[in-house]
Amino acid sequence: MIRRPHHDGSELYVSDPAPELGDTVGVFVRVPRGTGVSRVHMRWVRDGEPVFTSAVVDRRSPGGDTWWRAELPAHNPVTRYRFLLGTTSGVRWLTAFGLTAYDVPDSTDFRLVAYPPAPAWARDAVVYQIFPDRYARSPAADLRETPEWAVRASSWDEPVVPGPDATRVVYGGDLDGVARRLDHVTALGADTVYLTPFFPARSNHRYDAAGFDRVDPLLGGDRALERLSSAARERGIRLIGDLTTNHTGDAHPWFASRPDFYYAKPDGGHVSWLDVPSLPKLNWSSPELRREFRGIARRWLAEPYGLSGWRIDVANMTARFGADDWNHEVAALLCRAVGETRPDGLLIAEHGHDATGDLDRGGWHGTMNYAGFTRPVWCWLRADTVPFDGFLGRPEDLPRLGADALVATMSAFAAQMSWRSWSASWQLLGSHDTARIRTVVGDAARQQVAAGLLFTLPGTPMVFAGDELGLTGGGNESARAPMPWNRPETWDTATLSSYRALIALRRSSPALTRGGLRWVHADGDSLVFLRECADQSVLVLARRAAGEPLRLTGLPPDTTLESLYGGAPPLHIESDGSTVIDESGPAVLVWALP
Amino acid sequence: MIRRPHHDGSELYVSDPAPELGDTVGVFVRVPRGTGVSRVHMRWVRDGEPVFTSAVVDRRSPGGDTWWRAELPAHNPVTRYRFLLGTTSGVRWLTAFGLTAYDVPDSTDFRLVAYPPAPAWARDAVVYQIFPDRYARSPAADLRETPEWAVRASSWDEPVVPGPDATRVVYGGDLDGVARRLDHVTALGADTVYLTPFFPARSNHRYDAAGFDRVDPLLGGDRALERLSSAARERGIRLIGDLTTNHTGDAHPWFASRPDFYYAKPDGGHVSWLDVPSLPKLNWSSPELRREFRGIARRWLAEPYGLSGWRIDVANMTARFGADDWNHEVAALLCRAVGETRPDGLLIAEHGHDATGDLDRGGWHGTMNYAGFTRPVWCWLRADTVPFDGFLGRPEDLPRLGADALVATMSAFAAQMSWRSWSASWQLLGSHDTARIRTVVGDAARQQVAAGLLFTLPGTPMVFAGDELGLTGGGNESARAPMPWNRPETWDTATLSSYRALIALRRSSPALTRGGLRWVHADGDSLVFLRECADQSVLVLARRAAGEPLRLTGLPPDTTLESLYGGAPPLHIESDGSTVIDESGPAVLVWALP
Repeated sequence: MIRRPHHDGSELYVSDPAPELGDTVGVFVRVPRGTGVSRVHMRWVRDGEPVFTSAVVDRRSPGGDTWWRAELPAHNPVTRYRFLLGTTSGVRWLTAFGLTAYDVPDSTDFRLVAYPPAPAWARDAVVYQIFPDRYARSPAADLRETPEWAVRASSWDEPVVPGPDATRVVYGGDLDGVARRLDHVTALGADTVYLTPFFPARSNHRYDAAGFDRVDPLLGGDRALERLSSAARERGIRLIGDLTTNHTGDAHPWFASRPDFYYAKPDGGHVSWLDVPSLPKLNWSSPELRREFRGIARRWLAEPYGLSGWRIDVANMTARFGADDWNHEVAALLCRAVGETRPDGLLIAEHGHDATGDLDRGGWHGTMNYAGFTRPVWCWLRADTVPFDGFLGRPEDLPRLGADALVATMSAFAAQMSWRSWSASWQLLGSHDTARIRTVVGDAARQQVAAGLLFTLPGTPMVFAGDELGLTGGGNESARAPMPWNRPETWDTATLSSYRALIALRRSSPALTRGGLRWVHADGDSLVFLRECADQSVLVLARRAAGEPLRLTGLPPDTTLESLYGGAPPLHIESDGSTVIDESGPAVLVWALP
Repeated sequence: MIRRPHHDGSELYVSDPAPELGDTVGVFVRVPRGTGVSRVHMRWVRDGEPVFTSAVVDRRSPGGDTWWRAELPAHNPVTRYRFLLGTTSGVRWLTAFGLTAYDVPDSTDFRLVAYPPAPAWARDAVVYQIFPDRYARSPAADLRETPEWAVRASSWDEPVVPGPDATRVVYGGDLDGVARRLDHVTALGADTVYLTPFFPARSNHRYDAAGFDRVDPLLGGDRALERLSSAARERGIRLIGDLTTNHTGDAHPWFASRPDFYYAKPDGGHVSWLDVPSLPKLNWSSPELRREFRGIARRWLAEPYGLSGWRIDVANMTARFGADDWNHEVAALLCRAVGETRPDGLLIAEHGHDATGDLDRGGWHGTMNYAGFTRPVWCWLRADTVPFDGFLGRPEDLPRLGADALVATMSAFAAQMSWRSWSASWQLLGSHDTARIRTVVGDAARQQVAAGLLFTLPGTPMVFAGDELGLTGGGNESARAPMPWNRPETWDTATLSSYRALIALRRSSPALTRGGLRWVHADGDSLVFLRECADQSVLVLARRAAGEPLRLTGLPPDTTLESLYGGAPPLHIESDGSTVIDESGPAVLVWALP
């Protein structure tokens, strides 16, 4: 696959991935020798009309690739472009969908985006997701009264029992508990903690906010967030909050005082999230509601709390109901509110299926990439029998597919967003809303393959706390078991070590954080790709099972690659650009190109 | 290909393709025997969130197909849906992209659209495009003074000379001339005349409007349009006007009096269409400009002119400039203006490349489908040598591709719009903006194949006047030669007959105007498809060259199809569902299924 012309939105191919409107950037197409390309044109869309311009040869690399360059104006907030290649076997389009001999629609054009970008730190971040009730308790937790809506778990180690009352069971984790365990986060190598909601509510998950103006006293209140914030800052750890903008809980004072903030049903009652009456849906036609949320978004990013951004809950449904759709307006409003308070603030949208229509709109910097990452990885690595209940409510078993299907799905979703939005999106193997990755894949060896992909593919890796210890769980409730701090004998220390090593690898590798992506090989059991930037190129092999030795071609001839991860011997590329990788698996192996 | 599960947006598969918001419609999946499908789920997206519902078996057809039915609420103005099939070989998604074993983004989901639909008459229409200066002269034409900007052609038969001054050459066709030739339109079988602009301007094409408040006196003025309108009405012919909303000519009084209607450049001067200074670009931020256009759009649809709708020039760029994009708002404004005056009015957008992002937005009913029809047909049928200069300014030769590429391109574009928008879009083999189809394909036989596709595939056929006589032209100027009324010996009467016969076929065939589409076969030289509705099913074969006999399978066994067009003998399907079509070509053959 690498002996094909290539472009992506990474810095190797775009001179400035975050231009201002009106800037002109250089865009490059890399053309391997032997592909018969003699002419390269760029087509870009200016105010809705395609314009062609010729690319010129910029340089030839030592490996024999020709780099063509064209000048692309950032004329519109999103300027779409693609390439037309004149080759010895006819003309070809090069879009993010790949090479085609026939015309394809613009939806897979590359995109140069002139909206304010995600903050630079997000590119290098590793996010660790904490569900506060289940992470860690401080001594003060035992002294707090159990609120009326809650049932206190008899002990931290009491097994979680899924069921209709599961959301009422409180284990008593709190923000001071989180602060006491930051060393674990640091030792893991993560630098960003994403906290699920800390606002008062009437459930342990708190997605039914009863207010946005204070931290739930059950978590320690505003002062506890201040303490956590300064403890995190001392360790160089950022905090991301979780804000529900689609609905509130029915205990929110607005629900009584501001009927105009909600949707009434014509026959009485109110519209609610997935028809759950306790979660009334917000009506964003109200300018006052918009002002309120602007204030909320700003308040917690300011001192003394100093959050670094928000993950927006149910972003996909926010401000959408029937004929109403202000989703992109609201995303832009929240993005402005974040930027006003913290120019380096981050705004991530929860989106359970396909977020591509909502990205690159001047709002969300990225999404939680369930559709373009979690699902394809699950489908590739799932266990033979799956003791878990589907994926986000989908009927039919999770299919078991080859790595070629993983590439097809990831590429299809990535092709419909900018490289920038892909890079800023959170890639995840699971969350508080899904089964645990360990249960999905069935064993530690394949979990380590999954983690290998998480930390080597584009996008910001997000780890749901506990995955690194090999915790299991076949559904979202059972995935929320408390962290087994006091049962270290249950920890899967091999998995923990591999997470630490992979995070260290990622954080030390410019190719993994900033590099482009070229697929090298994909079959049923094996996946091989290159991540490349100006300073470094790495080759990644992921295998879900042992198999035959794997012969690769098209690599830089007469080179020797040193192992970066996985303990493989140096990999020698023959003078014809081929090499053979041995048959062992499951495995993740990473080498550095010289 | 037909032995696959199928759904499209036609009335065979959707109980009401034009629901009101809040209605529920039945949607059907047709599952041929032997495909191993035992479960069908529908996924639809409600306020941004996917929802699954089970389909149930509705009926089994005599041919052995099982029809599954699900209930789909028109919950949002555009409600996207797809199907998940449980089969003996795993789960499959069924989207407008086809069947996939892996996840694909929502962009190819089917779409149920609750915006007001295109008028019913448009579905059955055959449109005939007239460029008034070149169609026909009335006796009065000779008496009119030549305006200052123009050069009078020495005679109607003077050859067109392309070049920078070509747009100044006036041949003197006028609206009374059009009226005098309506019998030709009627004899052809077209029922809708689309007139390129009739407003005053300083070019023969008049896309540089000098006003929208009267008909150019050079065309006979307002009274001539009245006369044409009543002559057309007598014959049951509708008229469509042509309105430029992206720019005006610099002779428009607004350009002097209303600087706020235009974009000024920061360094002086004004922004203009493709940097042509005489075509200053309109700035739709002005509420007064919006009011003006609302009035213009309404005025000419009202009596005594009674146009049936508008084709909007440069719709793709309208209200787009840099950071500004009000395109969808403006389209919706124009659609409302049309609907207020004529509830059965039509609004078609010119779009030279990919209109799919601008359809199904409550504005344009359809587009001129250059990208999803003209280009793929040209690529399939182009002559070996092409004496014409590209296509709408694209570099590189037009590729010559097989029918499989035609299917891939048509499907790719159609998959990103609703069936309704596809059906209401104008399919065309060329226009005043392109080379003539005859020159593109090189001979009469292949032009007749092209015409065969034009009149048998989904969408409203549009014929550029003169194509039916076999006129040639390698670029837009030479394609605008005057109609050779007085040189009947130059007419290609065989092509004229085939156009008449194909139009008659289309207008008499409910399957061709309202039917769904299933591809049966596509290879290099041959294309076979079914158009099917409740009342009729037809099989269409198009072949660009003679070849081997073609064996088809999967057809209804033990049936005999009668020829509807092309003079082939009846086609017998064997008991195994196969048949063989002889090797002759180029050819278009149409049969009716019993």
